[in-house]
Amino acid sequence: MKLFYHHPVVPFCRKIRFMLFECGEDISSIEVAPWVRDKEVLKLNPSGELPVLVLENNKAICGHYAITEYLKDVLPSMALMGKTPEEGAEIRRLCSWFDNKFYKEVYLNLVGEKLYKRVASLGSPDTRLLKIGRENILIHMAYINWLMERRKWIGGNSLSVADFSAAAYLSLTDYIAEVPWEAYPEAKNWYAKIKSRPSFKKILAEKISDIDPPDYYKDPDF
Amino acid sequence: MKLFYHHPVVPFCRKIRFMLFECGEDISSIEVAPWVRDKEVLKLNPSGELPVLVLENNKAICGHYAITEYLKDVLPSMALMGKTPEEGAEIRRLCSWFDNKFYKEVYLNLVGEKLYKRVASLGSPDTRLLKIGRENILIHMAYINWLMERRKWIGGNSLSVADFSAAAYLSLTDYIAEVPWEAYPEAKNWYAKIKSRPSFKKILAEKISDIDPPDYYKDPDF
Repeated sequence: MKLFYHHPVVPFCRKIRFMLFECGEDISSIEVAPWVRDKEVLKLNPSGELPVLVLENNKAICGHYAITEYLKDVLPSMALMGKTPEEGAEIRRLCSWFDNKFYKEVYLNLVGEKLYKRVASLGSPDTRLLKIGRENILIHMAYINWLMERRKWIGGNSLSVADFSAAAYLSLTDYIAEVPWEAYPEAKNWYAKIKSRPSFKKILAEKISDIDPPDYYKDPDF
Repeated sequence: MKLFYHHPVVPFCRKIRFMLFECGEDISSIEVAPWVRDKEVLKLNPSGELPVLVLENNKAICGHYAITEYLKDVLPSMALMGKTPEEGAEIRRLCSWFDNKFYKEVYLNLVGEKLYKRVASLGSPDTRLLKIGRENILIHMAYINWLMERRKWIGGNSLSVADFSAAAYLSLTDYIAEVPWEAYPEAKNWYAKIKSRPSFKKILAEKISDIDPPDYYKDPDF
């Protein structure tokens, strides 16, 4: 693997970077603004979407779905999609939960309004949408907490892509101090474990544009 | 495999049914309205979303992402995701193209307005959105035609899940006579091949609610 085109505010990119770092792939990353049609990205991916992973043979693996499954295929020793087809199905169900449900109900309303708009100079947040996002996140936190009362990791009893997905969305929401951790102790314990992983520390150390996260953002003992 | 919860107007469901039929899995299907929160579906899939595949051991495989990859794992002889990780990446790139790009740019504006709204009794189509959908589909048809000038099937040189995805979206758009086939001969040739497959004929034989498709909808020599 050679190059990774991404942007830190795009959750699909953050999930893959966590996965790459966790697999020990210390690739070069190129930050691209997702709100412009970047010519270099368009040459690699006809849809123009991030992320794009360029291999040593210059072939491009386009989009988080293709990249996730490609990494699963070429790095099978990691078992990041579980050990059986049924374990894989549970992990992928939760990836979809975050990439579709959390994305629409929480990410767009909170991170989209407070962080993405600011980074892309798209104006100030819509307070009506912030209110909706703050209501919606409670249901998601309750669900994550419920899961973590029953299992060791988000997708089952071992670390998986479901954890990378969940961590991508929650860390972006945490960057703007919008995760109500205190009411959800099991969710918080899980995230403390995630934060202490060297692979994820690299991601938490990065600043998004000129915006500072809250002090506790990087702290595993938050 | 035991039961498949789906609705014929949902492209994610149509794609999986095509895949199941193509793999010779003649499962029982239960039609569920996607615009209500169905209690039976919610018990199987916490997100409440279709499709859901119930296995012989009563475990539920939830959502089109998990089901697609599960079927790929348990029916590997089909090679529906290509033969190498790189072939798989190209097939999945195109699945994302349809499930994200075609879905937002064409499906929601044309099928969403003309078919889904009617089936769900949600009022009459927004003519402004129909106009946007009719402009957008031209770009997609040109891209499919361009691909089919260069390869035998959508995802490469063998039939794959990319064909099932493309066929799911195009057949729903064709149900409301909104695909401009004549200007795109290579796309039309590909779709004629798809229409002549026994697995897909089963899907084309189904009526959606009380709405009739155009006469040529089922005809492989359209």
